[in-house]
Amino acid sequence: MERHFEKELELLTARLVDMGRHVREALKNALDAVEKDDAALARTVFETEQRVNRYELEIDNGVVDILALQQPVARDLRLILSILKINNDLERIGDHAVNIAESASGLAATPGREALIHIPEMSRQALAMFDDAMTSFTTLDAALAQRVLQRDDEVDALNREMISSIVRLIKADQAAIEGNLELARISRNLERVADLATNIAEEVIFYTQAKFVKHHAADGQ
Amino acid sequence: MERHFEKELELLTARLVDMGRHVREALKNALDAVEKDDAALARTVFETEQRVNRYELEIDNGVVDILALQQPVARDLRLILSILKINNDLERIGDHAVNIAESASGLAATPGREALIHIPEMSRQALAMFDDAMTSFTTLDAALAQRVLQRDDEVDALNREMISSIVRLIKADQAAIEGNLELARISRNLERVADLATNIAEEVIFYTQAKFVKHHAADGQ
Repeated sequence: MERHFEKELELLTARLVDMGRHVREALKNALDAVEKDDAALARTVFETEQRVNRYELEIDNGVVDILALQQPVARDLRLILSILKINNDLERIGDHAVNIAESASGLAATPGREALIHIPEMSRQALAMFDDAMTSFTTLDAALAQRVLQRDDEVDALNREMISSIVRLIKADQAAIEGNLELARISRNLERVADLATNIAEEVIFYTQAKFVKHHAADGQ
Repeated sequence: MERHFEKELELLTARLVDMGRHVREALKNALDAVEKDDAALARTVFETEQRVNRYELEIDNGVVDILALQQPVARDLRLILSILKINNDLERIGDHAVNIAESASGLAATPGREALIHIPEMSRQALAMFDDAMTSFTTLDAALAQRVLQRDDEVDALNREMISSIVRLIKADQAAIEGNLELARISRNLERVADLATNIAEEVIFYTQAKFVKHHAADGQ
């Protein structure tokens, strides 16, 4: 029985890591579609979404089954609850990838691409935070997870600069309004992706150290 | 032991309903601040946020304790997992209320308030969806929860019309760009609140009927 339980938990963890890979690919494709003005690449993201949704449902059901049948405690229970929450975070990141892909399609039809400005740097940072958050989960590296939390402010600052730049650009060139509004939307979605990467990192810290870090940084500001 | 467990579950449910009331109040104040151009009212929302965050942490810890100590199964387990997820949904709605309050503060300093357009109608619908979702939770009314799901498309449509109107308004009056961008942001936040109300309704359906409805509607489209 004990070994059977461990096997189930291993499988569930592996499914979550697989799901993370699909979400990561969708996000990368959406961001490449923006930077390379590639509507065909953007469309591939919409196909990934349904696969990610199936993963989420399967992992949710797996968590419910384990909780009901095995009644885990202590460290195992914390791992299972972390899986449940990271599952939700990954699905939300997948949704943001879809939003970005939609904006990429909108952008392709409009002028004003010089306004990309901070998007490549935000993309690089958000992807790096996502990768470090998932690595901290697979390697149980609480120190790495802690560093993810510290980087959230940089992406927030880039988002604010981006929105200010877009307001200036719209004032300078009315023809590019639609494209610039899509860029503002992409910027906000990237900021949310970075937020969700910090959620994942918080779950890893909760699992490895058995404490909730959520809101502590915000409360201390 | 059995009665002690039921008591704990009742307390946790009551805390969640309390949290819902605070989140509802914050959302209503943020929306009133937008419509009445009331920066002081917007500031009250920022104070609510920390209280909502404390509720979330407390409920999360309560769920972990019950799972670890009582090892519930079947219907009780489903209720506890629903509480965990609705807790997360409520906290996210609280975040959107804060975003809306920030935009209200931004709006107060800019011209172009005629551009509010669909905001009052979107506000009314999003609040009604939120109320019905929470009522479906407290009364275990799966039929009411089902009706919440059906109304999400209306808010999505209003959001799309709102964004189109804002593009037209920016083209007509450059002086009002900042204000109009804030209105676009409010509109998107309201659309997300309606989404999260449907998440809560889905959890109620999961709890009362023991099946996941998530993604089914989207897959069928």
